[in-house]
Amino acid sequence: MKCLILAAGRGRRLSCRAEAKPLCPLLGLPLIHRAILTAQRAGATEFYVVLGHRAQEVRDYLQGLDLPLKVIINQDWHKGENGLSVLRAREYLRGQTFLLLMADHVLEPALPQRLLAEGLKGADVALAVDTALENPLVDVPDATKVRLRDSWVADIGKGLGAYDGYDTGVFLCSEALFDALGQCVKEGRTALTDAVRLLAQKGRVRAVKTAGLLWVDVDSPQALKKAEGALLRALREKPTDGPVARHFNRPLSVRLSRVLVRTPITPNQLSLLCFLLSGLAALLMAMPGHLALALGGLLAQAASVLDGSDGEVARLKLLESEYGAWFDAVLDRYSDGLLLLGLTWHAWGQAQQGTALLWGFGAVMGSFALSYTADKYDQFIRRRLSERGRPPLRLGRDLRVFLIALGAVANQALAALVLLAVLMNGEVLRRLLLLRAR
Amino acid sequence: MKCLILAAGRGRRLSCRAEAKPLCPLLGLPLIHRAILTAQRAGATEFYVVLGHRAQEVRDYLQGLDLPLKVIINQDWHKGENGLSVLRAREYLRGQTFLLLMADHVLEPALPQRLLAEGLKGADVALAVDTALENPLVDVPDATKVRLRDSWVADIGKGLGAYDGYDTGVFLCSEALFDALGQCVKEGRTALTDAVRLLAQKGRVRAVKTAGLLWVDVDSPQALKKAEGALLRALREKPTDGPVARHFNRPLSVRLSRVLVRTPITPNQLSLLCFLLSGLAALLMAMPGHLALALGGLLAQAASVLDGSDGEVARLKLLESEYGAWFDAVLDRYSDGLLLLGLTWHAWGQAQQGTALLWGFGAVMGSFALSYTADKYDQFIRRRLSERGRPPLRLGRDLRVFLIALGAVANQALAALVLLAVLMNGEVLRRLLLLRAR
Repeated sequence: MKCLILAAGRGRRLSCRAEAKPLCPLLGLPLIHRAILTAQRAGATEFYVVLGHRAQEVRDYLQGLDLPLKVIINQDWHKGENGLSVLRAREYLRGQTFLLLMADHVLEPALPQRLLAEGLKGADVALAVDTALENPLVDVPDATKVRLRDSWVADIGKGLGAYDGYDTGVFLCSEALFDALGQCVKEGRTALTDAVRLLAQKGRVRAVKTAGLLWVDVDSPQALKKAEGALLRALREKPTDGPVARHFNRPLSVRLSRVLVRTPITPNQLSLLCFLLSGLAALLMAMPGHLALALGGLLAQAASVLDGSDGEVARLKLLESEYGAWFDAVLDRYSDGLLLLGLTWHAWGQAQQGTALLWGFGAVMGSFALSYTADKYDQFIRRRLSERGRPPLRLGRDLRVFLIALGAVANQALAALVLLAVLMNGEVLRRLLLLRAR
Repeated sequence: MKCLILAAGRGRRLSCRAEAKPLCPLLGLPLIHRAILTAQRAGATEFYVVLGHRAQEVRDYLQGLDLPLKVIINQDWHKGENGLSVLRAREYLRGQTFLLLMADHVLEPALPQRLLAEGLKGADVALAVDTALENPLVDVPDATKVRLRDSWVADIGKGLGAYDGYDTGVFLCSEALFDALGQCVKEGRTALTDAVRLLAQKGRVRAVKTAGLLWVDVDSPQALKKAEGALLRALREKPTDGPVARHFNRPLSVRLSRVLVRTPITPNQLSLLCFLLSGLAALLMAMPGHLALALGGLLAQAASVLDGSDGEVARLKLLESEYGAWFDAVLDRYSDGLLLLGLTWHAWGQAQQGTALLWGFGAVMGSFALSYTADKYDQFIRRRLSERGRPPLRLGRDLRVFLIALGAVANQALAALVLLAVLMNGEVLRRLLLLRAR
């Protein structure tokens, strides 16, 4: 799937210090780079980027990326509107169905994904339409509105009186768009919207409703802030988060991630850092005395907070990978094991009795078995949720580390081990029975 | 998908003590029950079984099963061949595409599955044809031969001079089969093969090649033995088996399973039994003295052998389930943990030093982490194997338990823990790096 991205305009209202607008960073990633990666996540494989204003700088940036992209320069970018830029790409997209995005629209990948999944279905153009009229991220006076007739676009334009949704700036197009644009340009109308309106009036533009999926037209510093806030908020709704993660770790880690995206640190490096911090915490806890134990517990909890950031940075910078998630999960298992070893060693050091060893083994087995059964259990819960919709409390790593930290701070190493062993193994037993009864 | 199963004939050559032929047990499962479950695994959801000889007994058995099936009695079973039984089902299968099987053909589910996946593709009948002419499971003089023209059946019959494959007795049929059968019966030919030949001569029978997939026509005690042997041999080729499993555990467990399928013990009960035996082995190992340690180690290895049987019995009785596999895997993790705890406790009891605790934790972490990373690693290896075809040695539970047992018998509890910790954690590290480099 080819993808055309428009990045030729000046964007006068958005001044990002010295950068050209497509290079304006949003959470550590320039808008144009974000647009390309978003399209890539949605399934696009080849990119055509039309540049105009300060084309040289943007081209230099793009050429530094390892992506299958072709830069197209529109020298006449200032002589009309964005339709002229689309026309420049005609020769590269002849006879193709292609995705069309605006560099200055921030999207979640699920939005173009849904459009691609729906497809043209015989239309000339399909447009992703946000039918959530109350969407607070939309600058209503400035937005392009869409009037619908069933699944078809009846009319489109900024000044529509009655309308059913907003133009998200995400299109799936056939070559017919170029013909319509050519006709409009001859008549002196040079905006993409003009051509889409022309096709819509002929009943050739399908609407794909994408209410609820994030998109922000970033044409002012306020909109940039809004987009940033929306992306950060979205991080806080991870369905597998347990209670401690949801109410304590996640709000903190999102704040950390907001800073971390501006640094060159990678998500995998963050995972490794959290593991090393957990190892250090385990060492501290293993030392004799309440002070070291408590400090170790606090460090463990801090590492658990930071551990949310690897995934968050990956999502914000569109760096998510299957390997990254797995790498993090495996290191988390080792962190869990080391923390429990630290606690066990401390408890054992106090009395030199086998009790600590027994409960320590019980806790580490329960902890691992809980993680081992998590995938299956989560799948089951997701299926059941779609039937009944009651969200369950999830016993996971967040609670585990929190209880370890609590036990350490309260100088109750053995009691924490007993509690963890009982809780975690009990939950595994519950899962075995629950899924059997299914 | 509806499925018609023919079980009306007498089967004079196969005498199973007092039972009617469809009730003849093969590895603990009557032939007719096996045929239904095989079709169900392949995707069939409704069953029509035509009975004739000793219909009452077979019907009584079938009515005790909790399956969506309809019994059809062919009173005239002795008045002709199996085509008459097919015609009896006409009223139930009007206008449908249906799978047609013989109760006395033992199949692996992948065979009808492939036929269903290929589909009719416009033909009146599709026939699964075994093109492996050297297949040792085929009784060549007695087999129905098939001559092919590209993907089409050109001729079919026992007496064909030149032929390209064998009729496996697995058909995908449209209603046209009934018309052809009706015509044949009028002319005095009452075998299913007659109707298939008639359609084949009109170029209406597609051949789906299934060379390599197991099927046995069980029409004699020798064939029954052959089928049993083939099903048992197939158990020994599990691609994820490690070296100890392949060369030691599996050959023994297959022998055990051959006996166990004849008992009412379920695969899940077997999993639980192995877990309890491992717990007992752990207790023995934890006791002081070399004798208890060695006995515990031997019991652990015995439990590891028996642990192959749950999956084998499930495969042989077509009882495999996602839950069963998962239940076994979770219990195995606990067995691993308990065995390592037993060994650690023993080592700790000898010196009361923290060394045992440290290495014990290391071993249990490595053991769990190895299992935790196994799915991902196996997926990766499968993908790579399909590219290069070099089978790797797999470090898994078989080797782990074997090393535990070896350590116990050699009275080297601590050394075994050290070896296990180094090996298992080293392998996890290797997997992390290998999959990253991908």
